[in-house]
Amino acid sequence: MIQINENYKKLQASYLFVEIAKRVAEFQKKNPDKSIIKMGIGDVTKPLPEACLKAFHDGVDEMAGEASFKGYGPEKGYEFLRQAIAENDFHSRGVSITANDIFVSDGAKCDTGNFQELFSNSSRVAIPDPVYPVYVDTNVMAGRSGVAKGSRYEGFQYMEGSEANGFVPGPEGVEADLIYLCYPNNPTGAVATKEQLQKWVDYALKNKALILFDAAYEAFITDPEIPHSIFEIPGAEKVAVEFRSYSKTAGFTGTRCAYTVIPASCVVWDAEGNEYSLQNLWNRRHSTKFNGVSYPVQKAAAAIYTEEGKAQVKELIDYYMNNASIILKKMKEAGFSCTGGVNSPYIWVNTGRDSWETFDMILNKAAVVLTPGSGFGQCGEGYIRISAFNSLENVEKAMDRITKALKS
Amino acid sequence: MIQINENYKKLQASYLFVEIAKRVAEFQKKNPDKSIIKMGIGDVTKPLPEACLKAFHDGVDEMAGEASFKGYGPEKGYEFLRQAIAENDFHSRGVSITANDIFVSDGAKCDTGNFQELFSNSSRVAIPDPVYPVYVDTNVMAGRSGVAKGSRYEGFQYMEGSEANGFVPGPEGVEADLIYLCYPNNPTGAVATKEQLQKWVDYALKNKALILFDAAYEAFITDPEIPHSIFEIPGAEKVAVEFRSYSKTAGFTGTRCAYTVIPASCVVWDAEGNEYSLQNLWNRRHSTKFNGVSYPVQKAAAAIYTEEGKAQVKELIDYYMNNASIILKKMKEAGFSCTGGVNSPYIWVNTGRDSWETFDMILNKAAVVLTPGSGFGQCGEGYIRISAFNSLENVEKAMDRITKALKS
Repeated sequence: MIQINENYKKLQASYLFVEIAKRVAEFQKKNPDKSIIKMGIGDVTKPLPEACLKAFHDGVDEMAGEASFKGYGPEKGYEFLRQAIAENDFHSRGVSITANDIFVSDGAKCDTGNFQELFSNSSRVAIPDPVYPVYVDTNVMAGRSGVAKGSRYEGFQYMEGSEANGFVPGPEGVEADLIYLCYPNNPTGAVATKEQLQKWVDYALKNKALILFDAAYEAFITDPEIPHSIFEIPGAEKVAVEFRSYSKTAGFTGTRCAYTVIPASCVVWDAEGNEYSLQNLWNRRHSTKFNGVSYPVQKAAAAIYTEEGKAQVKELIDYYMNNASIILKKMKEAGFSCTGGVNSPYIWVNTGRDSWETFDMILNKAAVVLTPGSGFGQCGEGYIRISAFNSLENVEKAMDRITKALKS
Repeated sequence: MIQINENYKKLQASYLFVEIAKRVAEFQKKNPDKSIIKMGIGDVTKPLPEACLKAFHDGVDEMAGEASFKGYGPEKGYEFLRQAIAENDFHSRGVSITANDIFVSDGAKCDTGNFQELFSNSSRVAIPDPVYPVYVDTNVMAGRSGVAKGSRYEGFQYMEGSEANGFVPGPEGVEADLIYLCYPNNPTGAVATKEQLQKWVDYALKNKALILFDAAYEAFITDPEIPHSIFEIPGAEKVAVEFRSYSKTAGFTGTRCAYTVIPASCVVWDAEGNEYSLQNLWNRRHSTKFNGVSYPVQKAAAAIYTEEGKAQVKELIDYYMNNASIILKKMKEAGFSCTGGVNSPYIWVNTGRDSWETFDMILNKAAVVLTPGSGFGQCGEGYIRISAFNSLENVEKAMDRITKALKS
């Protein structure tokens, strides 16, 4: 008899976005004339940069010629893209990552989800709260948790974010082998300083732990003191892996391209204490279960690193960050304590009351959809997440409506 | 201490293509003037069909407009593509698969590799020999095998292909929960009849087993009596999953699009014997670890099902099948017993001597690269695989050279 992976039975249904969709649909049914503004989902809205579009078309044209046609590409990605990444995202910041350390993929969600496969099921896992649910769910599927109790699973260590620690919990009290960090954070928008990341790197070096660093939102960092990569921290090249994505940077959520960085010096161990190259392990996994990213998409991604591409991506980021600053200003004026919105497209607002209550109130009074913080974990209760990914017009309209709703 | 998944230590290094590349490089170094023809790798060489190219460009153009821009798409794939698949690949053959049963992905390699995650690690696995190495390696990584002994792993059931059974081993003697089948077969080019597949379906129904059916080469079937889908077999909709790909059909090896079919009626069980919908289980996995295929790629794939697309794909298939028939004819004339080449782009040739010896002889005397059959498993010893994916000119040249080499 074919039996299921019993760990799937532990998974809590992903109620958050289903529940949001249900409540939005009910509201729209009762109020067919109201135009709803969606500020909940973290999806971009602006077109691809022109440089990417041109390169994308060029890539498709190459697929039309006998001589220029591309069949199977290298599983790790084309050298032209990996070289551009190494130079522009790392060398430019004084980080000595090479093209060989880079694995191009079709999404940071896939990579952050799949990476845990390389490790023993007995690995102790530390996960932030609030958090992007993929880190949790994929470790539950693999069998590293016990059963769920409320919104938490037995066996995981939850690193609690709060206003007291600025939503940047430190390693104090953590006893873990696999540590998930995400800065700029989804959902809180918090960023970690060099000193804060150094503590984690020191912890990992001392305890032979591994840091999985999700930097999908690094392009939104505006403060020059904030590191864009964990590899700006001395020692990180021995104990960390970094996940990057073009989804939010260049609007690739529907185009699909991302990459993972594993320095050659990063090692892990077997039960007898023998050392293994993490790069080699991931290469074995990547080349067995993946077949490379679409060639025209890789061409489009490489165009991000041209002069025009850089300027156009900056324009996109500036556009969304202008939205973020408007949202932040309005929420502060309304008297709320906020995180994010400065180095991040997310604004995390302490509403002082139940997340779903706020969600319902804003939906009903202002016809604006937000994300209830409790959907990201226990520590998100009392908060809402507002996304800056929208048109300026919609953002201004939504802020007016919310401000009026709060006063009524 | 972060410890590796110890199952990775069991994996045999993938020597086959590394060893081929090494020997080819050595030969080229010694014979810099010789032009080598590569008939080994199963990669397409002809450009994408024009209908796909046009739709691909149109999809990119949509990414340029504020209103037409596409962000995150449905993880399962766009309805327009899933609907076209259901109608053209299934309804047209009298199979009642719906759009809802279809999961679009970036490759059949990924899907056939990832699918085993849904099942208990104690599942008994039956794998053909010779075989595409991904089925084996991904089950080793998951921990369903013992250690390797020679080219085989303890704990797997190898279904042995031979000329006696036409490389279509039956269920006699198999005691498995998870059964991998691949027809038209890679590497042997063998196809299974309705009667042969019915035996497997009956076995699975009787034993509550699940069949993972890899149909990546179905487009090459020319014999009207041979089923294109396992769902043409009554009862299969309860016990089978099918993997399809556009890689070989429409030349998508570098473009990346495939799909997996899980009928709503297919169920699996937990340890207590409770029933679970396999479609729901895969949906949970797919939406947690995957974020959909690039929108312009899905547009390009959907164009395969237009009238022009169908005609252009047929032209591509005919072109490669003409190559296949030339290869088959020449190898038969040379006195070899062959499988494949009729409903498959692969010709599997019994050379009557060691696979690597034949490889070396043909490389040295004819400057043609073939694939040694022993690289696909123990039962491939004595065989070579010849791929029809090349230009007609190269195929004719290669056959001339091989024929002369065999006579000398």
